[in-house]
Amino acid sequence: MKILDFLQKEKIPFHDLGLYKEAFTHPSYANESHDYKKDYERLEFMGDAVLQLYVSKFIFKLFPTVPEGTLTTLRSKLVREESLARFSKELHLGELLYLGIGEEKSGGRERESVLANIFESFIGAVYLDCGEEEVLKILEQTIYKHVNDLDYDDITDYKTTLQEFMQADQRKTVTYQLLEASGSSNAPEFTVAAMMDDMRLGIGKGTSKKRAEQQAAKDALNKLAH
Amino acid sequence: MKILDFLQKEKIPFHDLGLYKEAFTHPSYANESHDYKKDYERLEFMGDAVLQLYVSKFIFKLFPTVPEGTLTTLRSKLVREESLARFSKELHLGELLYLGIGEEKSGGRERESVLANIFESFIGAVYLDCGEEEVLKILEQTIYKHVNDLDYDDITDYKTTLQEFMQADQRKTVTYQLLEASGSSNAPEFTVAAMMDDMRLGIGKGTSKKRAEQQAAKDALNKLAH
Repeated sequence: MKILDFLQKEKIPFHDLGLYKEAFTHPSYANESHDYKKDYERLEFMGDAVLQLYVSKFIFKLFPTVPEGTLTTLRSKLVREESLARFSKELHLGELLYLGIGEEKSGGRERESVLANIFESFIGAVYLDCGEEEVLKILEQTIYKHVNDLDYDDITDYKTTLQEFMQADQRKTVTYQLLEASGSSNAPEFTVAAMMDDMRLGIGKGTSKKRAEQQAAKDALNKLAH
Repeated sequence: MKILDFLQKEKIPFHDLGLYKEAFTHPSYANESHDYKKDYERLEFMGDAVLQLYVSKFIFKLFPTVPEGTLTTLRSKLVREESLARFSKELHLGELLYLGIGEEKSGGRERESVLANIFESFIGAVYLDCGEEEVLKILEQTIYKHVNDLDYDDITDYKTTLQEFMQADQRKTVTYQLLEASGSSNAPEFTVAAMMDDMRLGIGKGTSKKRAEQQAAKDALNKLAH
């Protein structure tokens, strides 16, 4: 049985093999089968929640100063369908899938949404069968490893970092001053200065005030570091 | 300090008191304060994911046959703002809140959204500081206890139960036959029969075909049980 070989190869100390069969059964297979009526949807529900928690915890600790909004954006990038399908492919989970005849013909085994679903249901099965520790081993080989692929300019909150940097010396607040708003309404460009009292720390441009402020903070941090 | 008294009264074996201060600090307080810049939003992000997982696991095990869609509905009922605000009130978390002056005046301490947020941030802090076991103790006193308040007709999947009941004897599929669609488009009424081959097992009515099918399955189960 392919699933058994897979679990042994991946060194997963399984107890309930039935749970993994459930995790790898597409609804189309369960619909066509007379004697196997379970499918991966319940375990996918479970695995989704498992991923949310362990990805949240991971980025919460990795980025101790970024605000909640950035954590939310970051998490959704890490667990979006495209990412999960990629991990599924890396683990060759598609080969383990029980599919209905029609789904097989229409390419269900390679479909991104299906591959993402079975990554989740697989994680759900491992969590229920083996617990947190085994899940974390899989996440280390997949999601956690890919955190480095993210665009750090989206993640790093330069404004918070700058504020904290300045407060190490003095208890003052960095403010942001709009210097210029140009461009059209479709393609606006804002220029913002990061200020401490009357001192200009840095300047940044961006397509929104928020982005321009982040770039101004980044510029200030670069200057302060030299 | 109120938070310390609270943690001792609730017998929470805390390590990092600062984490609880963060969990009970409203953004309005952090904005006004010169020396305390953290607020509960990051821990709320964390706690939300903690609740999703442990509520998912709880209902997954409590309802071993209900389909994924029902689990999702059920989970969202258990963790919606109104429910979380209630648990917050039961634990008197509002009394521990650090609020800005304006928020205090405008009734922020009693606001449902704020109370729900600090239930989440509190759970986030307990999870990071003490781990899963302490979180589960709190959930047992709050969310898990309230599962019984839910409307079970919404939860129970009579169709799945009926199918499983019939399969105990024979490997056949229960089908559903639409007998009548009446009423107006605003208030439709469907009548459906649950069938096994030519045998009518039960009849049900509902405002959608899906509800009528569930009621037909419920009717069949009642008849089969007598």
